[in-house]
Amino acid sequence: MAPPVTVNSINPKVIECEYAVRGEIVILAQKLQEEIKAKPAAHPFEEILYCNIGNPQSLGQQPITFFREVLALCDHPSLLDRSETHVLFSKDSIQRAWKILDQIPGRATGAYSHSQGVKGLRDAIAAGIEARDGFPADPNDIFLTDGASPAVHMMMQLLIRSENDGILCPIPQYPLYSASIALHGGTLVPYYLDEATGWGLEVSELKKQLEAAKSKGIDVRALVVINPGNPTGQVLAEENQMEIVKFCKEEGLVLLADEVYQENVYVPEKKFHSFKKVSRSMGYGEKDIHLVSFQSVSKGYYGECGKRGGYMEITGFGADVREHIYKLASVNLCSNISGQILASLVMSPPKVGDESFESYSAERDGILSSLARRAKTLEDAFNKLEGVTCNKAEGAMYLFPRINLPAKAIKAAGEARTAPDGFYCRRLLTETGIVFVPGSGFGQVPGTWHFRCTILPQEEKIPAVVTRLTDFHERFMDEFRD
Amino acid sequence: MAPPVTVNSINPKVIECEYAVRGEIVILAQKLQEEIKAKPAAHPFEEILYCNIGNPQSLGQQPITFFREVLALCDHPSLLDRSETHVLFSKDSIQRAWKILDQIPGRATGAYSHSQGVKGLRDAIAAGIEARDGFPADPNDIFLTDGASPAVHMMMQLLIRSENDGILCPIPQYPLYSASIALHGGTLVPYYLDEATGWGLEVSELKKQLEAAKSKGIDVRALVVINPGNPTGQVLAEENQMEIVKFCKEEGLVLLADEVYQENVYVPEKKFHSFKKVSRSMGYGEKDIHLVSFQSVSKGYYGECGKRGGYMEITGFGADVREHIYKLASVNLCSNISGQILASLVMSPPKVGDESFESYSAERDGILSSLARRAKTLEDAFNKLEGVTCNKAEGAMYLFPRINLPAKAIKAAGEARTAPDGFYCRRLLTETGIVFVPGSGFGQVPGTWHFRCTILPQEEKIPAVVTRLTDFHERFMDEFRD
Repeated sequence: MAPPVTVNSINPKVIECEYAVRGEIVILAQKLQEEIKAKPAAHPFEEILYCNIGNPQSLGQQPITFFREVLALCDHPSLLDRSETHVLFSKDSIQRAWKILDQIPGRATGAYSHSQGVKGLRDAIAAGIEARDGFPADPNDIFLTDGASPAVHMMMQLLIRSENDGILCPIPQYPLYSASIALHGGTLVPYYLDEATGWGLEVSELKKQLEAAKSKGIDVRALVVINPGNPTGQVLAEENQMEIVKFCKEEGLVLLADEVYQENVYVPEKKFHSFKKVSRSMGYGEKDIHLVSFQSVSKGYYGECGKRGGYMEITGFGADVREHIYKLASVNLCSNISGQILASLVMSPPKVGDESFESYSAERDGILSSLARRAKTLEDAFNKLEGVTCNKAEGAMYLFPRINLPAKAIKAAGEARTAPDGFYCRRLLTETGIVFVPGSGFGQVPGTWHFRCTILPQEEKIPAVVTRLTDFHERFMDEFRD
Repeated sequence: MAPPVTVNSINPKVIECEYAVRGEIVILAQKLQEEIKAKPAAHPFEEILYCNIGNPQSLGQQPITFFREVLALCDHPSLLDRSETHVLFSKDSIQRAWKILDQIPGRATGAYSHSQGVKGLRDAIAAGIEARDGFPADPNDIFLTDGASPAVHMMMQLLIRSENDGILCPIPQYPLYSASIALHGGTLVPYYLDEATGWGLEVSELKKQLEAAKSKGIDVRALVVINPGNPTGQVLAEENQMEIVKFCKEEGLVLLADEVYQENVYVPEKKFHSFKKVSRSMGYGEKDIHLVSFQSVSKGYYGECGKRGGYMEITGFGADVREHIYKLASVNLCSNISGQILASLVMSPPKVGDESFESYSAERDGILSSLARRAKTLEDAFNKLEGVTCNKAEGAMYLFPRINLPAKAIKAAGEARTAPDGFYCRRLLTETGIVFVPGSGFGQVPGTWHFRCTILPQEEKIPAVVTRLTDFHERFMDEFRD
């Protein structure tokens, strides 16, 4: 009998799901990289420069030493009994490892934990949230997860019953949201960020799109807000956040707040405020609004993507609904303990007076100020390109410049059966080795074209990136200029 | 407005999903544990003994030293440059850490990897599979995952389109399968293992249930086989596996082989054979059968549950279907790198001649032989209890004894509005602190009652467990004997 599992017989929701951040262009980049490895002169560049994904350590960012010391000690606790360890490790990393091990029943870092995560680690995270916000946080509201992605899936799984359930998502958006909504069979209700006002989020636009969805019979259940923005890099003003919170309360929407870039703010005039803090400062409590905040160890100055740590803080849900969320978490038993430990560390880093404080602060500040410089350099470089405009990089790890493609380039893309922004990115990759993600992977106003570029290449490489990009762009425009 | 998210408005598939291994009895156990912590004399026992879950290190099993050495070095690679490290770590753990770091682009253990996992680690796993089976394995067939659970979900997501799609599952089964099928909206098609023949798997039963499902309009897509069995502890004979493979080929079913207990075989007359090896030895290749094998770092002699490492090996699917599986993996970016490293280590442990080989083998053999003794002791103890019969513990980490409950106990359970086996387990917990999972959580022939008990309490505690259980059982029977 013929093998029965074909693309025609798999779940159509899987077929529909798209995830551009690791899509076609990146698969091509991996192929080119293999070719260069086999034959260094195979292409007109020596290496692939991955600007497609917020993966800082893949581009040379070093981990925070204190965090790695603690992880190593928790991985191999018998080191703690050895005198050489006091030579190799900082005093406070040893103390912190002991503290963490004492919070884990039997000091067993190799055991499944409580399905929400180790209680003592959740205590540390809750204390970190309190210190950040100035409002209480409850460790029982924390669910530790393998990065933020599984937490997002869990909420979509909880909320989406059928294609009649809608989730309001920004356009452009991080495609995890569109992918998760597609996989769970719901409807993405788009709201457009306003490029002209620095990717502003207008509540009037939210209202318009909510009404439009309702008129189509869609039951809109939640609003996704990504702040600082991905792929757009804007940081919301506090007043704007207050309007959003009020809107969610009035419309009975769950506010799904993607706050994984909370440490990544690069301009002095903007500050990160959590939606929890904003809601509480408006006097809204548990009974007023369903609020979920996602955090990850992959971003910030830590950039520990490979550790897959993260959490969500869930407030405003009744005990009975929370029992079902707990059950969903329990089906996968627990998230990885190293990731849990790291999530507690990023929310409670060394303090003034700790032995590691100085080196920790120097590492953190070095990374963040370098990211700010790189963001500015790239922003300026994009704005110098013919037909390209780029908003200010206020936060996150990305720029999302707009490119006014000549009609001839759009025609050539059509003949190559690709979207015009995909056509540009593919040419950029094959000529320079630089990997951007086409804007169509994130969504954009129809007829406009963009791409997402991370600010993560190491600082000493940025001038070369700018030169390669500028030269390519000139050639491209010379070829296609109308 | 009233908070809109209530149990009446969440996804009904979430409501339907059940996961007894961390269900009601375990939640009660956690509550009792808190009470004992607050007031040590609160209950007639000093500690809760969790026999509900295959979580060896939570009950005192020590990790394999070599594995933890390598993990610590990969977590904090700058240790490798220090002379003290050569005092603290074995020579081969240092060599292995270097080898692994060299396989990771930029030695960045904090970077997202390829979505299937680091290529060099998949090479090591593929080599381990080849050495185990004597048949080739392709690293491109390996998908590294955070434990085996996400891999199972991924396959269910791929295969299940609607409630008309069925998955053949053993009864009793590990409830991850029923939970995942419920969450993805499919139909669990049960086939019963035969308790009378040591939980035998009869192909005639598979055929019967397949036909019954077909006659109800169910499109049966896959067969789940758990070998060694969970919760039932049997190890399949090779001839039996050949019949199962043939059945899947003839019926065009995907064979989902849960092989996470492949190292846990306790009787000399049985041996683990992977379904891949069995299929290949029958001459069946890529074109003949869709085969997925699940493996995990949580079981075996390693028992590294908290590390969330695992993989699936996928063979027999076309390139186009595999692209969609890759896409599903890519939406969550990658599994955690420590778990990936550990998965490579369990499939390529130290070899004869390596510095760690002796200590590694001693640790491994000590754990496995102790597990075999514990299994036998508990099996014998169960068989001595009035009205209880227990099959041989051939493998895995569980016993699944049958209890012939008196009519009076069944009546009392009805009055307490619980299932009779749940009633027994709840009484056992509140009187002794021992946590079993009621058989109803795994499925059982209607009218029969069982419970699942792990063989994992440390060996020196086993006599006390047996005494507490035996005393409880006598009291229970005295109270309810007909």
